Amino acid sequence: MKTALRALCASITLLCVAPAVRADDKDVIEYRQHIMKTLNEQAAVVGQILSGAVPDDNVISHLDALALTASTALKAYTPKVPGGEAKPEVWSNWPDFSKRMNEFAKMTADMAKTAHEQGKDAALAKVVDALSCKDCHDTYRKEKAKK
Amino acid sequence: MKTALRALCASITLLCVAPAVRADDKDVIEYRQHIMKTLNEQAAVVGQILSGAVPDDNVISHLDALALTASTALKAYTPKVPGGEAKPEVWSNWPDFSKRMNEFAKMTADMAKTAHEQGKDAALAKVVDALSCKDCHDTYRKEKAKK
Repeated sequence: MKTALRALCASITLLCVAPAVRADDKDVIEYRQHIMKTLNEQAAVVGQILSGAVPDDNVISHLDALALTASTALKAYTPKVPGGEAKPEVWSNWPDFSKRMNEFAKMTADMAKTAHEQGKDAALAKVVDALSCKDCHDTYRKEKAKK
Repeated sequence: MKTALRALCASITLLCVAPAVRADDKDVIEYRQHIMKTLNEQAAVVGQILSGAVPDDNVISHLDALALTASTALKAYTPKVPGGEAKPEVWSNWPDFSKRMNEFAKMTADMAKTAHEQGKDAALAKVVDALSCKDCHDTYRKEKAKK
C-alpha cells in the first residue's frame, strides 16, 4: 500500500496548491487501471468462494464491492485517452463499449441485490452471466506484453 | 482478468464435485492478498482524487468500496496461516492486530457514511485518519522481496 500512501501524502500537499482538477493522460490511464484491477481482485475472490477454496462468510460484501466498482468503470473511460491496455476501439466503438459497460454495471448490481434479498446462493447462480469479462476483453483489451 | 476467469471456470466445475469448503494454505493467503490489493487500488484512487489528478465524480462509490472491503479484511486473517507478506506477529499479537483492523473498518465505514450524509468534502477530510495504513504495515507486513 506504499504507492497508495505516497499518492495520499503527495495529494495532501497538492490539495493546498492545485484546486483545479485537470486529469492528464497518465492520471486518466492509472485511474481506470486501478478500477479494473479492483474488479479483477474481487472477481478472483468470488471465483475462490464459488470453487469452495475459501469460506463464503464475506460474499455479500464482495458482491457489493464488485457492483460498486462496476458502477464507476464507464466514467473512467469517458476521457478519450488511448493507452495502457485499452484498445482504440474503446472510443471508436463507444456506443457498443458503453452499452456493454452499462450492462456489466446493471448485472453486477442485480447480483448484489439478489444476494441481499434472496441470499448468497441465488446471487452466486448469476455469477457466470454477470462476470462475462472475457467477451469484452477480447474486443477492447490489448494482450499484455510478456515480461 | 484472465486469472479471475480461469478461477471462475475452474470453480464452476469444482462446485459440482466439492461441496465441502476447506481452505488450504495457498487459498487462504491468496484470499487475503486479493482483499489487500483491492484496498490498495481503491486507496490509490482516493489519493488521485484528493490530489486533483482525476475528477471526483465517483468518489462516494470508491469510499463505499473501501469501507466494504475493509469490513471483509479481518475475517481473511482469522485462519492462522503465515505466509505471503503477513508477519507471524499478525497471529502472535492477534488482540492488537484485530483491534487495528476493526478500527480500520470502523473509520472507513464512518468516512463512507459521512460522504452520504454530509457530502464528499466532509468525507475526504477524514481520509488521513481513516487510511493510516503505514502504521499497521510497518508492524505486520514484511517488506516485499525486490524483483
